[in-house]
Amino acid sequence: MVMESLDDTDKTNIYDTSTMAANLPSLPLHNNNNNNGFPSSNTDSSLPHSSTIHLDHGDKVALESYWWKMRDKCTVEIKGWEFLSYGRDRTNSVCWFMSPELRDAIKRLHGLVGNAEIDNSYLVVGNGATQLFQAALFALSSSPSPSPHNPINVVAAAPYYSGYPDETDMVRSSLYKWSGDAREYDKNEAYIEIVNYPNNPDGSVRTTPVVNNKYGCEGKLIHDLVFYWPHYTPITHKAKHDLMIFSLSKCTGHSGSRIGWAIVKDIDIARKMTKFIVLNSVGVSRESQTRAAKIMEVLYNSYQSLRFDGSKKDSELFFEYSRHLLKDRWEKLRRVISENGDFILHNQFSQRAYCNFRKESSEAYPAFAWFMCKKEEDCGIYMEKKMKVVARTGNRFGSDSKFARIDMLGTGDNEFDEFLDRLSTIYQRG
Amino acid sequence: MVMESLDDTDKTNIYDTSTMAANLPSLPLHNNNNNNGFPSSNTDSSLPHSSTIHLDHGDKVALESYWWKMRDKCTVEIKGWEFLSYGRDRTNSVCWFMSPELRDAIKRLHGLVGNAEIDNSYLVVGNGATQLFQAALFALSSSPSPSPHNPINVVAAAPYYSGYPDETDMVRSSLYKWSGDAREYDKNEAYIEIVNYPNNPDGSVRTTPVVNNKYGCEGKLIHDLVFYWPHYTPITHKAKHDLMIFSLSKCTGHSGSRIGWAIVKDIDIARKMTKFIVLNSVGVSRESQTRAAKIMEVLYNSYQSLRFDGSKKDSELFFEYSRHLLKDRWEKLRRVISENGDFILHNQFSQRAYCNFRKESSEAYPAFAWFMCKKEEDCGIYMEKKMKVVARTGNRFGSDSKFARIDMLGTGDNEFDEFLDRLSTIYQRG
Repeated sequence: MVMESLDDTDKTNIYDTSTMAANLPSLPLHNNNNNNGFPSSNTDSSLPHSSTIHLDHGDKVALESYWWKMRDKCTVEIKGWEFLSYGRDRTNSVCWFMSPELRDAIKRLHGLVGNAEIDNSYLVVGNGATQLFQAALFALSSSPSPSPHNPINVVAAAPYYSGYPDETDMVRSSLYKWSGDAREYDKNEAYIEIVNYPNNPDGSVRTTPVVNNKYGCEGKLIHDLVFYWPHYTPITHKAKHDLMIFSLSKCTGHSGSRIGWAIVKDIDIARKMTKFIVLNSVGVSRESQTRAAKIMEVLYNSYQSLRFDGSKKDSELFFEYSRHLLKDRWEKLRRVISENGDFILHNQFSQRAYCNFRKESSEAYPAFAWFMCKKEEDCGIYMEKKMKVVARTGNRFGSDSKFARIDMLGTGDNEFDEFLDRLSTIYQRG
Repeated sequence: MVMESLDDTDKTNIYDTSTMAANLPSLPLHNNNNNNGFPSSNTDSSLPHSSTIHLDHGDKVALESYWWKMRDKCTVEIKGWEFLSYGRDRTNSVCWFMSPELRDAIKRLHGLVGNAEIDNSYLVVGNGATQLFQAALFALSSSPSPSPHNPINVVAAAPYYSGYPDETDMVRSSLYKWSGDAREYDKNEAYIEIVNYPNNPDGSVRTTPVVNNKYGCEGKLIHDLVFYWPHYTPITHKAKHDLMIFSLSKCTGHSGSRIGWAIVKDIDIARKMTKFIVLNSVGVSRESQTRAAKIMEVLYNSYQSLRFDGSKKDSELFFEYSRHLLKDRWEKLRRVISENGDFILHNQFSQRAYCNFRKESSEAYPAFAWFMCKKEEDCGIYMEKKMKVVARTGNRFGSDSKFARIDMLGTGDNEFDEFLDRLSTIYQRG
């Protein structure tokens, strides 16, 4: 799902800021300055039982440990005199501010994984998938030219990513407006449907749109595929949609770099998305683009050397490492939940499928757990009150407040274990 | 002036992309891989007389040579496992994604230069001044709550920066809309006036708003101060406006980093700007923030050591070095223009004032030259046709097409000299 970490936007009205300070997220347990230099989110053992655990974000700090292992290979050094220009790649007739190195790295990575068709398409880089989503709304709603009448309706099947509605309606555009659950869409008007798979928050893999409009209105599609990578889900097909969005944040875990990319079939749409990003932020940080290219190169090379000598350990291969980490957490979580009568894990993902990348049948391990609370009407409030665990509540996803979303990768191991401990203890206490 | 490099957006209709490929900017003469590693924009001597010179951008690549001199001091190294989180500073109750190092560096730099009052205000970091400008429109137009009726009018005194209209109207917000020249504003409606000094494109220093509304309507102000630094203009006062925007791009020249900041008096406005940036791009590249802090630290330290031993050469002090570079170019340009009957330099800047930072009377050396063509009605077309020089034409600044803007820092020395050469030769040829 596109763009996370919106927990600090208030939950009801995007124009009301009164609650923001109170809702400020706390730091994950993370300190880069301890003795051996290891990022402590995975090693810290001093989490007090009384402290709040934030599992409402979309951070992927659990993946730090992999990049720590690879630290000698992916350091990036930037000189003082580099990147004074906005960056102009004359060979790129569409997204002129995209670095050629990043473009090539993205192409190689999709080639390796086989999750998206990239030939005969155009690449657009953005400040994370969030900006690209808005660039896509702009491009699709003004193409071939903006409607002189109504803003186009933007819909997604519930439960949908909590950021879509606020991002769509933030500045009250006359080009597009949020229109809710795609399953209930029944206006005699043009629309854009966002198809998000594996779906945030519930992990369901639904590759086709759901709008079934009785008026036969024109529908355009945005495919949000930020979680369509082999650590989260089996790669069952090479996606070939008209407009697909990916991000570094969900692929390698580097959320702080704010790098996303779109693969776009229509050159005019790609150009309009580029124009949006130019008018919105005059391109994308060149430091981040350079680093993203390096990170992707290291990831790619680890698989290349595997192909040649076959001796690579799973722990050196990013997707294997990350998949094991997720698998381990999911197995522990399922065990605890099976003994806890308060909650049900409500993820709607197919249990197993053949993964073309891993060349074997694989299970899905979604980035989020989708909890249903049997005990109280508001799952988020129940978790916070009983367990000091902050989850993102279901009504923010166009769903019911009896649901809540838990980030499976947003914390280090010890914090995650403490969460499991509380889940288990609280139930026993009754 | 906020945000440059919009030359690749088409010039008439932001929804039309047909001309974009043809208008693609060319690379500045710049190659980091030559023998001694020196960025060649200032040394390249092979500019063919037949090639087009692009002086329509806002790049500041001429400043590369300073950062090349300081290269040992400002290298930044980023490890693979750093910045996986979006960045959360618990001590910052407003802009939680701003790095504490950048915040401190900005405070120190303004303290050194004395160009802006920063105490008792809130800092918001953005993806360049461009994004902050839009964040400010959002915050001001929805504060205390959005008008249920008309979008608020956004105005600036012509000639105004060419990006304002397109950025304001890009997604046709119902919160705000572009309403043209502030001097002609006479509606009985609320408005936002952008005050930009030194002004892009003409360098005028007009610190107060110009709207003189006969209805006495409520007006809000955005002060765009991206060029209020001592290389461009004497620092005559410490700016204390409600909402001020600055950028790394115009201060140190690092446009590719996309770092801007706003100094905001009202905490609710600062929070709404932060919310815009969260919903727009979930914060700002941490790589860029880290590097911006380092660059500012090196700049600051050079002046600190001067204070202690007094032995520093001007060429080691960033603002002195850059001012000399601009002074040299302006003097050459004035000389050539004085002998060229086709053009007049139409910059409206006060010639000399006491600079509180330099502690002496100083001249202004604006980042742009504002040409008026005496020979033809369209200055931009005339330059392109006769000299193969691309300038940004006056009507894009709400002015007349007999004017055109020339970037004084967008090229290396040789390319700038070639421009002067063409200016001089063309006139002689008649």
